[in-house]
Amino acid sequence: MDRLRHSLSAVGADAILVSHLPNIQYLCGFTGSAGLLFVEPHSSTLYTDSRYTFQARQEVSDAHVLIVKGGLMRAAGEKLRSSRGRRRVAYSASQVTVAQRQALDKAAGNKVRWVDDGGLVEKLRAVKDQDELERMAAAAALISEAFNKVVRLIRAGASELELAAEIEYQIKQEGGSGPSFETIVASGPRSAWAHARPTAKPLRKSELVVLDQGAILRGYCSDMTRTVFVGRAPARIRRLYQAVLRALEAGKEAIRPGVAAGAVDAAARRSLRRAGLARYFTHSTGHGLGLEIHEMPRLGKGDKTVLQEGMVVTVEPGVYLEGIGGIRIEDEVVVTANGAIDLTSAPRDFLEL
Amino acid sequence: MDRLRHSLSAVGADAILVSHLPNIQYLCGFTGSAGLLFVEPHSSTLYTDSRYTFQARQEVSDAHVLIVKGGLMRAAGEKLRSSRGRRRVAYSASQVTVAQRQALDKAAGNKVRWVDDGGLVEKLRAVKDQDELERMAAAAALISEAFNKVVRLIRAGASELELAAEIEYQIKQEGGSGPSFETIVASGPRSAWAHARPTAKPLRKSELVVLDQGAILRGYCSDMTRTVFVGRAPARIRRLYQAVLRALEAGKEAIRPGVAAGAVDAAARRSLRRAGLARYFTHSTGHGLGLEIHEMPRLGKGDKTVLQEGMVVTVEPGVYLEGIGGIRIEDEVVVTANGAIDLTSAPRDFLEL
Repeated sequence: MDRLRHSLSAVGADAILVSHLPNIQYLCGFTGSAGLLFVEPHSSTLYTDSRYTFQARQEVSDAHVLIVKGGLMRAAGEKLRSSRGRRRVAYSASQVTVAQRQALDKAAGNKVRWVDDGGLVEKLRAVKDQDELERMAAAAALISEAFNKVVRLIRAGASELELAAEIEYQIKQEGGSGPSFETIVASGPRSAWAHARPTAKPLRKSELVVLDQGAILRGYCSDMTRTVFVGRAPARIRRLYQAVLRALEAGKEAIRPGVAAGAVDAAARRSLRRAGLARYFTHSTGHGLGLEIHEMPRLGKGDKTVLQEGMVVTVEPGVYLEGIGGIRIEDEVVVTANGAIDLTSAPRDFLEL
Repeated sequence: MDRLRHSLSAVGADAILVSHLPNIQYLCGFTGSAGLLFVEPHSSTLYTDSRYTFQARQEVSDAHVLIVKGGLMRAAGEKLRSSRGRRRVAYSASQVTVAQRQALDKAAGNKVRWVDDGGLVEKLRAVKDQDELERMAAAAALISEAFNKVVRLIRAGASELELAAEIEYQIKQEGGSGPSFETIVASGPRSAWAHARPTAKPLRKSELVVLDQGAILRGYCSDMTRTVFVGRAPARIRRLYQAVLRALEAGKEAIRPGVAAGAVDAAARRSLRRAGLARYFTHSTGHGLGLEIHEMPRLGKGDKTVLQEGMVVTVEPGVYLEGIGGIRIEDEVVVTANGAIDLTSAPRDFLEL
């Protein structure tokens, strides 16, 4: 919270309204589903409703808790109405709905001058401290272990949903609070959909299977993808796999403090271009993660965010061929002075099962 | 889509911009995580990005699919820029961020006059058709069955997380795509938190355990809560349970077409008041559900929404006593000409396990 306060003047604000729940959790510890945090130079207030009376009392540190009725934005606005003079309040326009802003403005009278917060909290969150890195390493170890257990169940006849259920079951059995996103198990032509949901479709012989999974452990997310083949793969598929694996390595090798996020994307893309596959790589190379599964930085084309020690990102090149299927290999790494260190650890060899 | 078009003139609009993903799914079938649907009197356009090229082609009916780069709002705005004259575009201020609206306005030049959509799509969604009711009955049967299986595992020593894992595993094993919200298993004093997340805490003898769970099956959500006791319950706890059960029945009995949603809340609350427990009932009595776990109508104090045949709602009174624990019993019911019909079916007797 103190680091946030020190940054307020840099964006020309004297307070910040934080509405995005993971930002609230990061700053004061509250994990409820309804909250609004107002941070001023010498005090902070968490607004929530009566469902969270006990929970807020237990969880929140470093902020006063106010239990309110009739809308959090209205309550925050009413408090602002009594300010002496106009307040310059930082906020994120991409995290506040038009209706929320209208509700606060109405309750606050003419007291608020809105200021773009420039992603202040997200920038703090992008660089993980030691405690966060330990949690993230544990969440990544958990998902690697869950995958290693479930990979033994992959065979023709098993359904995508069954495998997804097994992965999510392992996550909870190992103490995770759940998957960090809906587990993807996509087989055959469906594996060419980068974000396919698992279905009752059974795996068939000679199909690619993309498994993209992550766990939440002690609040922090992990993310890992592996692609396997049911039966013996034809030479062409093996070559595709090796090309994606090389792109993964090329991406990781480009990672070090001071490098632009876009340079990592470019390295992975260049590797696939050499294999004539760049046009089949239809998404960006990776993304930060932490309390959320998608955070800063984005490892996309031309992204200028400078990588720093302590950032945690995925590297996940893939190729998607309609009618044939998709291959994606994804690791989660931490940026260190010595480059990228893997947090996910399941085997990267092409598994033909 | 046609019913939506017919309603546009009622809100003074000649088109509607739909950004909320479940609304998009309802109207055109698309289930991807990035979409924007623009509905005009004689055509509809779904904007999405390249990750969903194949999926959109397979899923979308009744709309043109446009794969765009550089932001969906910008793309929609650029198309509007070429309109003859100003367009009156309906939208929901609570589903569009300040940044999204700014992006569209900028791209559209001066061509859009925004009009409040008055929750048009939500109102359509609140009344389920026959196909939807069948899906919802199946999702409710699935969660009732999952609970009946897992209830056998409840004993001192089992952890909240293990039980939650078992419930979510059963959901997927039975063909559900996953839980409709993070399963709540809260024991002992933690059961007094209406929205507690499960932890590694083991159940102990003489504790209340609240289990609140739901499944998604073929796109539709279910929701059911049961409260059980580990061991033999003292007479006082049994009396509390019976009072909540009576409030559940009172709520259900108040349900019929033409009644205000708030009257159902009042009936449940009145029942608890007679038992001297109204002050421990700290949330509203229920909510609609469907493609989402929370939909219209809200069964809260003074809510004037008129119940209609085909609406599906929860009835979930509860009492929460700090230090002792919580008791909540929740069923999901469909509103019919003959009153409320239960969709969830697990036993409502007080289980002392």
